[in-house]
Amino acid sequence: VPHQSVLETYLHTHIPISKALGVSVVKAHLDQVILSASFLANINHKKTVFGGSLQSVATLACWSLIYVNLKQRAMPYEIVITRSTIDYMQPVISDFQAVAERPSEDMWCTFLRCLERRQKGRIELGATIEQNDQLAVRYTGTFAALS
Amino acid sequence: VPHQSVLETYLHTHIPISKALGVSVVKAHLDQVILSASFLANINHKKTVFGGSLQSVATLACWSLIYVNLKQRAMPYEIVITRSTIDYMQPVISDFQAVAERPSEDMWCTFLRCLERRQKGRIELGATIEQNDQLAVRYTGTFAALS
Repeated sequence: VPHQSVLETYLHTHIPISKALGVSVVKAHLDQVILSASFLANINHKKTVFGGSLQSVATLACWSLIYVNLKQRAMPYEIVITRSTIDYMQPVISDFQAVAERPSEDMWCTFLRCLERRQKGRIELGATIEQNDQLAVRYTGTFAALS
Repeated sequence: VPHQSVLETYLHTHIPISKALGVSVVKAHLDQVILSASFLANINHKKTVFGGSLQSVATLACWSLIYVNLKQRAMPYEIVITRSTIDYMQPVISDFQAVAERPSEDMWCTFLRCLERRQKGRIELGATIEQNDQLAVRYTGTFAALS
């Protein structure tokens, strides 16, 4: 498992907009990735966080979760996002965190098994952003891994 | 109708991440807004455009379409995004443009009528991003206007 600072350096180097978004890695475990991002870098005309930035940070959190998990595999692979949906439920008005969770063991194992056997797997991941302990953003992304 | 450079200045000033995304305004008409964005600012580890950036620029294009249309109204108003879905169909590997179109006259008039009568209206807008004349991204956003 890459240490969180290794993941952070990877993101800032290879997906440079992550640096402009003010993303830093709070947690990079196999079952959960938490990214934080800056309010001021993502402020909009209403002094809330721009919706596109919320989607970007949620996407990075889910992508990172797969990255952290697949990094240990010997075989090279590629992760592609194919679709995402985001519900904006409350405005975000401060620095924020996107939390991506590994889905149920069943879904995760199916994904890995498909990747082993057919060199491709597809999985739906969720991420959330809270504001004062209330759900502010609910994100779902569909990711395909190819090896 | 604000000239495209007025819209561009507005975006860069009030939604500063738009500047980091390398957004510029190509067209700002009542029936169509076209924003362009930089490849290099949004590159990822696969040398394609990061999916979060594609969503951000599509969101800005749709938001700008409503902004351009509502700017003429006397009454103050607010535009809020409540939901969006994006399909990533082809990788984007160059500078790109997001095109937002005003929906059918029927839908648009219903939106404006609701906004007049009930001080709120809701509308679903679409944006597309093409790559070599092929559809690369299909975006749909639901926006609420309040006045």
